[in-house]
Amino acid sequence: MARVFNFNPGPAALPLEALERAQRELLDVGGSGMSIMEHSHRGKVYEAVHNEAIALVRQLLSVSDDYDVLLLQGGATQQFALVPMNLLDPGKSADYVITGSWSKKAFKEAQIAAEARAAANMEQDGKYRRIPAQSELSLDAQAGYVHITSNNTIAGTQWHAFPDTGNVPLVADMSSDLMWRPIDVSKFGVIYAGAQKNLGPAGITLVIVRKDLVERGRKDIPAIFQYRTHAAENSLSNTPPCFAIYMLRNVLDVVTKQGGLAAVETTNRKKAALLYSVIEERSDFYSSPVEKDSRSMMNVVFNLKTPELEAEFIAEAQKRSMMGLKGHRSVGGVRASIYNAVPAAAVEALAAFMREFKSV
Amino acid sequence: MARVFNFNPGPAALPLEALERAQRELLDVGGSGMSIMEHSHRGKVYEAVHNEAIALVRQLLSVSDDYDVLLLQGGATQQFALVPMNLLDPGKSADYVITGSWSKKAFKEAQIAAEARAAANMEQDGKYRRIPAQSELSLDAQAGYVHITSNNTIAGTQWHAFPDTGNVPLVADMSSDLMWRPIDVSKFGVIYAGAQKNLGPAGITLVIVRKDLVERGRKDIPAIFQYRTHAAENSLSNTPPCFAIYMLRNVLDVVTKQGGLAAVETTNRKKAALLYSVIEERSDFYSSPVEKDSRSMMNVVFNLKTPELEAEFIAEAQKRSMMGLKGHRSVGGVRASIYNAVPAAAVEALAAFMREFKSV
Repeated sequence: MARVFNFNPGPAALPLEALERAQRELLDVGGSGMSIMEHSHRGKVYEAVHNEAIALVRQLLSVSDDYDVLLLQGGATQQFALVPMNLLDPGKSADYVITGSWSKKAFKEAQIAAEARAAANMEQDGKYRRIPAQSELSLDAQAGYVHITSNNTIAGTQWHAFPDTGNVPLVADMSSDLMWRPIDVSKFGVIYAGAQKNLGPAGITLVIVRKDLVERGRKDIPAIFQYRTHAAENSLSNTPPCFAIYMLRNVLDVVTKQGGLAAVETTNRKKAALLYSVIEERSDFYSSPVEKDSRSMMNVVFNLKTPELEAEFIAEAQKRSMMGLKGHRSVGGVRASIYNAVPAAAVEALAAFMREFKSV
Repeated sequence: MARVFNFNPGPAALPLEALERAQRELLDVGGSGMSIMEHSHRGKVYEAVHNEAIALVRQLLSVSDDYDVLLLQGGATQQFALVPMNLLDPGKSADYVITGSWSKKAFKEAQIAAEARAAANMEQDGKYRRIPAQSELSLDAQAGYVHITSNNTIAGTQWHAFPDTGNVPLVADMSSDLMWRPIDVSKFGVIYAGAQKNLGPAGITLVIVRKDLVERGRKDIPAIFQYRTHAAENSLSNTPPCFAIYMLRNVLDVVTKQGGLAAVETTNRKKAALLYSVIEERSDFYSSPVEKDSRSMMNVVFNLKTPELEAEFIAEAQKRSMMGLKGHRSVGGVRASIYNAVPAAAVEALAAFMREFKSV
């Protein structure tokens, strides 16, 4: 079958060039006579890939030497536990801004691992429609950190300006929008992201963490869970998920060749603007459950008049090779996830279909 | 370059057919128009792969319904922490049998996470030459579990008969020899293994755990670290490392088609016997640092008269496309790792070279 238009929410579309490179090299990487999966993680061939992946993260996001770039396992979900385990000394509490299902899960896990309080909870009638304003945050000046989820895949909301947390480190789960545009990493204490949206395949987690936080992190937790263990050994303390890191390298190499994050942002904004404009154009037919200023550039969530119409829309789209448009099972509706690797052509095809669907 | 003879200790050689299948399907799995890496972990295409991988583990090892088969992340090293965190109630201690560097690491991590004592320590002058006899184990009848490392990759030793631990659950790190032959899973409370020797690529960890241990496991640890979280959701509680699991499926499918573990054992025994016989044949030239009854069938460790001769041997072997023969940096010497996917032809080539090297 020909490659389809992939609007999956994650794991999601990967750049075709990154996949083609993997396919070409799968039995023999760089003339070594082995797959990258068969190389020792302590050998030169793999180490070059590993270091290139880290260097590309640093370059693309302009990460300064004040930060460690860690390549870990377990997904963002594991970071829900590791962030409080590392950063919260006994008696300290963390502030969580709850803007969707994922930040709610992060908050719950932090409550088991340590102490956590909600600095804002945007849930209303079981839905999350917007990102809070700075004035709506009830921040504890003594908190160990403030945690946010930069993009909410299910609700379709996104932080467009990050909150001011003063001297309290800002921790962000950026699993679903890291690298959608340039950001100022120096505003964050920790940024973490499961790779399976903009970065690569599932199975690798990127953690960018300020070195002073690594250093003063707790030492009474198992060594494997301490950021310092991984920072001290360049994320080679134990065997890393080599192939997932190889794919991360392939993806970030493509992003770099596309012109880096400024170029990626321009494309991403055009893609999202196109879909939101069609929703507004046919506002009698489509509606967005999200307040305008909080709309996500990664997950365009919208509704039709009835669940039946939504099901028909999704089924018809599928016939046109547009896959993965079903909204999350907890909220229903339609969701077009348009991460970096979703080409403009896919979004244009979807926009054309949205204009045409039941228009006569 | 042509594919080489790969004696890497792990990540290690993978079956060529498993890699070729991945290469063929990399851009489009099963006519879906997407890579397996681009599929949702909640979609039918991925779920079929996931469930097939688990079913193949169950079939190959005859795992009964009394056990959960979990597919996790973080490697065996993460299990060093998770086993005590899950299984040890406050006040309970675990027994560790220390037969090499990896069991020593597991023991140290358990001491941070909970309470642990050494039931035997086989280290002598910094080396591990053998597996203890049952009579050498000082077992605590009240222990939460007894932990062993079934095969020691660095020392080149292996348990050929498992210890009797009475009513105390036996926990085994089988990272480097699981599936080298059939075993009686019912003798174990927990078996865990990082995949990167016999099972698949790095980035996926197999845990086979008795359901009653899952059920009575601790609930006061973060949800992501509780075995019950993953058991309750068929290891789909959070996004799994989909591609690594896909490769696990590919590898286990090959093993099944080879005739299963009984057939694999026959081949593995022949491979190891050939190398050990050459070591004995030329005992003036090669020596094994391991006692005969404790010799590993997976990692054949041997020495030449001097480190210089060993370096020459390894360099000459490399010229003949035999890679990865250098002993672990902590012990030196030569090590041929001959896991399931290392073909008999590779071992025969090595044996021929060993016979010929400096023989005139």
